[in-house]
Amino acid sequence: MNKQQLIDNIFQKKSFLCVGLDTDIKKIPQHLLKEEDPILAFNKAIIDATAPYCVAYKPNLAFYESLGVKGWIAFEETIKYLKSNYPDHFIIADAKRGDIGNTSAMYARSFFGELDIDSLTVAPYMGEDSVSPFLTYEGKWVILLALTSNKGSHDFQLTSDTEGERLFEKVLRVSQNWGNDENMMYVVGATQGKMFEDIRKVAPKHFLLVPGIGAQGGSLEEVCKYGMTKECGLLVNSSRAIIYADNTEKFAEVAAAEAKKVQEQMAAELAKL
Amino acid sequence: MNKQQLIDNIFQKKSFLCVGLDTDIKKIPQHLLKEEDPILAFNKAIIDATAPYCVAYKPNLAFYESLGVKGWIAFEETIKYLKSNYPDHFIIADAKRGDIGNTSAMYARSFFGELDIDSLTVAPYMGEDSVSPFLTYEGKWVILLALTSNKGSHDFQLTSDTEGERLFEKVLRVSQNWGNDENMMYVVGATQGKMFEDIRKVAPKHFLLVPGIGAQGGSLEEVCKYGMTKECGLLVNSSRAIIYADNTEKFAEVAAAEAKKVQEQMAAELAKL
Repeated sequence: MNKQQLIDNIFQKKSFLCVGLDTDIKKIPQHLLKEEDPILAFNKAIIDATAPYCVAYKPNLAFYESLGVKGWIAFEETIKYLKSNYPDHFIIADAKRGDIGNTSAMYARSFFGELDIDSLTVAPYMGEDSVSPFLTYEGKWVILLALTSNKGSHDFQLTSDTEGERLFEKVLRVSQNWGNDENMMYVVGATQGKMFEDIRKVAPKHFLLVPGIGAQGGSLEEVCKYGMTKECGLLVNSSRAIIYADNTEKFAEVAAAEAKKVQEQMAAELAKL
Repeated sequence: MNKQQLIDNIFQKKSFLCVGLDTDIKKIPQHLLKEEDPILAFNKAIIDATAPYCVAYKPNLAFYESLGVKGWIAFEETIKYLKSNYPDHFIIADAKRGDIGNTSAMYARSFFGELDIDSLTVAPYMGEDSVSPFLTYEGKWVILLALTSNKGSHDFQLTSDTEGERLFEKVLRVSQNWGNDENMMYVVGATQGKMFEDIRKVAPKHFLLVPGIGAQGGSLEEVCKYGMTKECGLLVNSSRAIIYADNTEKFAEVAAAEAKKVQEQMAAELAKL
């Protein structure tokens, strides 16, 4: 999916919500455990229920890998289900990969080549040759970690260099030599508040993937205030607050209601543009 | 495996070689393609042939993931094969993971809990809470990226902060508040030469996992000169130069001969201690 298509989807649906499919076998409703593939059954129900209110889905690979082979099957089947039934939804494999060139190329082949996923989150620590193999696929996106939502983001990402540039700013600046706003986005945590202003100084046009509203406590209003662009420029993710809003047989219905609430707030924010 | 056991294995076998199982279906000998699981067949043959000359194996997850579900089966079966037949060999899952706390905890459950692998490579960018969930498993190790072997290591890892401390040094220093030399190692590329001296100033006792000899051009002699400790303190990895030394029916034999050559150099280095 290219940038204009993503923007069109956002304004048409009045939503920039990404639903995080952090599906944990220990947290899904009990009655699903009798299904042949409970994870897939849960994902299908969540997807069908929330699709009208979101523009993207983000399965986090950790949750699938933790189940080994069964988890990988559930992941691949979820991707196939999305691509067949909801081809206009942007898919993010939240994998935070990044390795030496020939290894990153293997990951790219897997996620972009074989699974045909739109985008992948990538960690920047290993530099250009760990990221660039992902940038050679037409219509595919790297979503590079910049300033994450967790407490540990303060350990290294905020370190200032001798020029006064902080590490996350250096990542934003330097990586713009590798790709552009048509094939790169950045991860910026919703918990970072006013820091979005600093992000926008370095990356005024890039889309930002914003985790951390909901369970992690970030504010949608603040994210929009400091991070939104004329093209929206945001994909805001919510995982636990939507998918685990209820764990009875009504879980999908309740998830839809939660997604709708967020979508309505987003519609109000988009209306301000 | 604890640190003393690893040291004992090294001095007993006169080797600190780690064989990297970067098994690529496109590179293995043609005759294996008729096997039910060619990746597993290749790994078993390589392991049986090289086990006398090495103390560790390091499958790189990217190579397995690139084959999807089949790849995960081959990975899990390789781990089972190692654990049943070579329980004294240290196993490193080279995955370079690292995510917010609850997600890292899922990865830890998968690699340490279920697969019972000795260690996992982890990326430091997201800080303490992305690493600490891996440190709660007795006898398991985090191997944190510090100064990697690739060209891109210069992009961010060498950035000096306002105190003159470079990012990789900060990673080495700060992470010692999270774990110790009994549950953490660091990745330092063999291509970094004299930089090992700087590493040893900050982390004098930790084991270092050293990729980059062989295909990437690092020198074993230089690594030992600047990085070796009285306890050895090194696990030096070679992947491509050993496992793809030959691609005929004699591949395993040739791999063994290559591993033996490296082991003999290592024995000479250990004899200097």
